[in-house]
Amino acid sequence: MKAQIEFLPGGTVTSPEGFFAGAVSAGINKRAAGKLDLAVLFSETPCAAAGVFTTSRLKGAPVKLTRQRLEQGRAGAVVVNSGCSNSFTGEHGLVDAAETASLVAEGIGIEPKDVLVASTGVIGVPLPMKKIRASVEEIIMSRDGGHDLARAMMTTDTMPKETAVSVKIGNSEFTIGGAAKGSGMIHPDMATLLCFLTTDASVERGFLEGALKRAVDASFNMVSVDGDTSPSDMVLLLANGMAGGEPVSAGSEQARVFQRALEQVCVYLARLVAADGEGATRLIEVIVDGAASPSQARQAARAVVSSALVKAAVHGADPNWGRVVAAVGRSGAEMDEANIDLFIGDIQVIKAGRALNSGKREVNKLLKGREINLKVNLNLGKGSATAWGCDLSEEYVAINSDYMT
Amino acid sequence: MKAQIEFLPGGTVTSPEGFFAGAVSAGINKRAAGKLDLAVLFSETPCAAAGVFTTSRLKGAPVKLTRQRLEQGRAGAVVVNSGCSNSFTGEHGLVDAAETASLVAEGIGIEPKDVLVASTGVIGVPLPMKKIRASVEEIIMSRDGGHDLARAMMTTDTMPKETAVSVKIGNSEFTIGGAAKGSGMIHPDMATLLCFLTTDASVERGFLEGALKRAVDASFNMVSVDGDTSPSDMVLLLANGMAGGEPVSAGSEQARVFQRALEQVCVYLARLVAADGEGATRLIEVIVDGAASPSQARQAARAVVSSALVKAAVHGADPNWGRVVAAVGRSGAEMDEANIDLFIGDIQVIKAGRALNSGKREVNKLLKGREINLKVNLNLGKGSATAWGCDLSEEYVAINSDYMT
Repeated sequence: MKAQIEFLPGGTVTSPEGFFAGAVSAGINKRAAGKLDLAVLFSETPCAAAGVFTTSRLKGAPVKLTRQRLEQGRAGAVVVNSGCSNSFTGEHGLVDAAETASLVAEGIGIEPKDVLVASTGVIGVPLPMKKIRASVEEIIMSRDGGHDLARAMMTTDTMPKETAVSVKIGNSEFTIGGAAKGSGMIHPDMATLLCFLTTDASVERGFLEGALKRAVDASFNMVSVDGDTSPSDMVLLLANGMAGGEPVSAGSEQARVFQRALEQVCVYLARLVAADGEGATRLIEVIVDGAASPSQARQAARAVVSSALVKAAVHGADPNWGRVVAAVGRSGAEMDEANIDLFIGDIQVIKAGRALNSGKREVNKLLKGREINLKVNLNLGKGSATAWGCDLSEEYVAINSDYMT
Repeated sequence: MKAQIEFLPGGTVTSPEGFFAGAVSAGINKRAAGKLDLAVLFSETPCAAAGVFTTSRLKGAPVKLTRQRLEQGRAGAVVVNSGCSNSFTGEHGLVDAAETASLVAEGIGIEPKDVLVASTGVIGVPLPMKKIRASVEEIIMSRDGGHDLARAMMTTDTMPKETAVSVKIGNSEFTIGGAAKGSGMIHPDMATLLCFLTTDASVERGFLEGALKRAVDASFNMVSVDGDTSPSDMVLLLANGMAGGEPVSAGSEQARVFQRALEQVCVYLARLVAADGEGATRLIEVIVDGAASPSQARQAARAVVSSALVKAAVHGADPNWGRVVAAVGRSGAEMDEANIDLFIGDIQVIKAGRALNSGKREVNKLLKGREINLKVNLNLGKGSATAWGCDLSEEYVAINSDYMT
């Protein structure tokens, strides 16, 4: 069976059949007057649904509520706001999150328990419920409302992050869409951001959850901006089945293709998140091959992409490759100095543990590009992993030293 | 038995009896012409010696050599250079480290295997042995040479870090001195820097090693500047016994006092290392009380002090305490939101999980001081720990994006 996965120009989270979205400027985000900051995503038919959540012990009210509601394995809508994360807000935060969901449920005409809630923004400040009550009813839902939703999720993001792929397999066809926000507090493990994924494929709930977990592990969990994990982060996947056909279930050829397409969407969005890290001027992609195991490859790739020294060196286009091997060294992954190869872009700078006198000028030029590729081969085993991050700039500090004041 | 521990004005690593040091500008550090960059510390009588080393899998040649030589439990001298870390330099690096030690041994008239070696600086560049051969013999050793040694260790450090304490217990008296360098690549675990500690107390080797490990755990292992651990780091402790008296052995009152004095020296130096982190303008001290266990307290304190977002907020004197609780939340330490208290300096900003509307102006004023104190009480158990770090400034990025070029 031949399958085809194709990115859709202008694709977004409402590209799959039956999904609608809309957004409004509710005035929640005090730092950006007039910015869209409250949005709703819904499906005209009920969805199988799954989620992955922050690993922080501190969980925002929306995370608690949404995780609990997902136990039923289905959902009909998501409401999201930026400007206030409704985390560290105690019992009252849960009441506010539930009320927000209820307002949306009433507007759409579904049950409150089928509405999921996500919030991002400042920690420890209550949701301005007056504004939310006044604004929910003003939201106009449309089939291409995904673009507005992607904008409404943004905090210090400089651009919306959205995409969709069309998948053909045999005679059946379906679409997967997604929208994400990232920027600061982006770090494995999980969920490191907000991301909503939708599909009109019919997918069994049991498979859906595992598929999402695997896709997140290969994408968002391999992104680091600053080593901080937020209490608010979640990735949600809603499948409404409107494309028809047999439900995708584990072990089938469809499942394999669905998994691959989902991962492509997630990796695409994860790269956008990394490239748009706070203050970032460059995307850094780190590939580790030849590790003793896949998990050691992940460890090593994440250590390199998280290293403040590597990030600052890339920012300055400084060919200081010693920092890359130092990061691999402290990652905990098995390594033998005498086996290491390192490439910056196409240029090999270390061969079997020895520094080659590769053209510094060429490396410096490569490091000035928008996208930097670092490839480490540990030459020990077959473990392989890719991680994404960004450079560390003076701008990151400026953004984060003046966020609340 | 009454004991007294007193910091000595102008104290340094050669304050204890019988220790000599000297330094020279060998031209190893190409970025600072004329700077002292090669130094020797030695004791006129043989020392019991112990060391703690980097946890990175990538270990510089000096770390490998010194660790191996310390297996004999004694040493007579240490040679240290800055400007080149002699790490990721393969077999040849080991040969160079050993030759450096031999040159020093010959000059002093002791056995090469009694000379320990430490290096700090750029990774992946061979030691300039010609310069070292020419310079070792020019070093003039003196009783107050500790000050020059402390300067010779510096890389991007802006000031030498040294101190000494005088200890009186009953009729006996001894001195502990130390010199350290820090700045970048400073992170737990271990050793995160170079530090040489000396004492004229007579100390049993078995106790010496444990005492050093405990002191480092309470000091240098609780310091984070940028989350990067270097392949070169080590803390060495040499005890020459010249103060006389019974050897300090485990379980005695002397041992208890020696341990406390050693920790005071280490904490003093660790705080200097944190305060002089690359680009730092403020020292951050994080105290976590009430954790479920001491190790969870350590985890939480280290997570807060390592958080790029907390560091940037402190830099901007931004009272964004949500970032502090978010860092505790992701640290892995048990916590219950409803139990948390947080103080910034003397001002309580969170009580039992609720934000108090404490004067933002006062907090902002406190955050503009040279030293910021953050105190978290998890109110769960008796675990307590203190960690030190520094703010994250634009200057950190500037320093680290132009280190090699």
